[in-house]
Amino acid sequence: MTSQTIKTSKTRIKRVPKRGHYDFETISKILDEGLVCQVGFVVDNQPFVIPTAYGRVEQRVYIHGAGASRLIKTLQTGIDVCFTVTLLDGLVLARSAYHHSMNYRSVVLFGKAETVTDEAEKMTALKAFTEHVIKGRWDQVRSPNPKELAETCVLSLPIAEASAKVRTGPPIDAEADYALPVWAGVLPLALVPDAPIPDPRLLATQQLPKNIRTYAR
Amino acid sequence: MTSQTIKTSKTRIKRVPKRGHYDFETISKILDEGLVCQVGFVVDNQPFVIPTAYGRVEQRVYIHGAGASRLIKTLQTGIDVCFTVTLLDGLVLARSAYHHSMNYRSVVLFGKAETVTDEAEKMTALKAFTEHVIKGRWDQVRSPNPKELAETCVLSLPIAEASAKVRTGPPIDAEADYALPVWAGVLPLALVPDAPIPDPRLLATQQLPKNIRTYAR
Repeated sequence: MTSQTIKTSKTRIKRVPKRGHYDFETISKILDEGLVCQVGFVVDNQPFVIPTAYGRVEQRVYIHGAGASRLIKTLQTGIDVCFTVTLLDGLVLARSAYHHSMNYRSVVLFGKAETVTDEAEKMTALKAFTEHVIKGRWDQVRSPNPKELAETCVLSLPIAEASAKVRTGPPIDAEADYALPVWAGVLPLALVPDAPIPDPRLLATQQLPKNIRTYAR
Repeated sequence: MTSQTIKTSKTRIKRVPKRGHYDFETISKILDEGLVCQVGFVVDNQPFVIPTAYGRVEQRVYIHGAGASRLIKTLQTGIDVCFTVTLLDGLVLARSAYHHSMNYRSVVLFGKAETVTDEAEKMTALKAFTEHVIKGRWDQVRSPNPKELAETCVLSLPIAEASAKVRTGPPIDAEADYALPVWAGVLPLALVPDAPIPDPRLLATQQLPKNIRTYAR
């Protein structure tokens, strides 16, 4: 396992370079915490950005969908993709409007999507999607049957030409502004679960499993 | 104010069309709740997807940045942009792996970014950025001075060729699966604030204002 991604003119962080990270550990941690990615692709010079679920297995990310969807049909042609995951960690409240910011962790990954044709790799990817959303879920639910497996198209991208960008910490105000009578600091934000809503047709005997009861991202 | 956006081949929801919405009210509500947008654009047929902050004023969205940033420099050339905002509302936990899903609200907007040159419109947009992040903040902080105003480039996009996609409600399982002994339902998720972290250099006399203390998205 390589510990650094490939730094290119596309992935090198130009704006505030000290926020750039290129190590596999930082990148994979962000990918594992996120739930939704944004997939960017081009059709007739028109950019499209579509949110979708994803999973990671070692040094590849996987997305999936019905073979009939525009996203999947387009990506299957082997065009260039930009895959982005953004985690918002907090509002950075400065003493001036100008120095307001956000604390975040994001990954931007470039590549060409490959269709997963190997049945075993496909099943591994589907397990990764489910486990990515909620750990332990794969063994609690019915596995995909041959018809469902055939209907699902799985695409993969290598985590190679990728970078992460991370901002942490308090606001950086202009020196003169520190004397202003303004509250400044960080308001942390996190994606937090609320009480689970049982399905209207849930069997009366069905207990809420621990991985849902104690869910945290 | 028109109440419907322009439905085109790009914005028409093809996959699960009943999830598509084209009214300005649905779209603007999602835009106002989100904090981060994803801006997609094309350079030499390569797609880029960059997360950034934004604001809305009536029927336009605004983004901003240093005039030197790649994102801003590229968008200023008047190229096509895809602007996407995604809100994740919950995990949809079905009885089969195949029927797992997410509840979400997303907006996809197409257009060409225009540089805001009018000083008054620029100041209105900057106020919208700050108020979008936290209501009431603009009047609490120091306003942009002429130097900061000159250094900030503001771009706008009309909310015209746009659509929203919304999934709500419980999982939809295959009929035979409803008899399975599996917990199914929705685990709601929300972006929730944690305790504010005062800046290390905060004046000792400075009280936490109500709009931060009671912050909710």
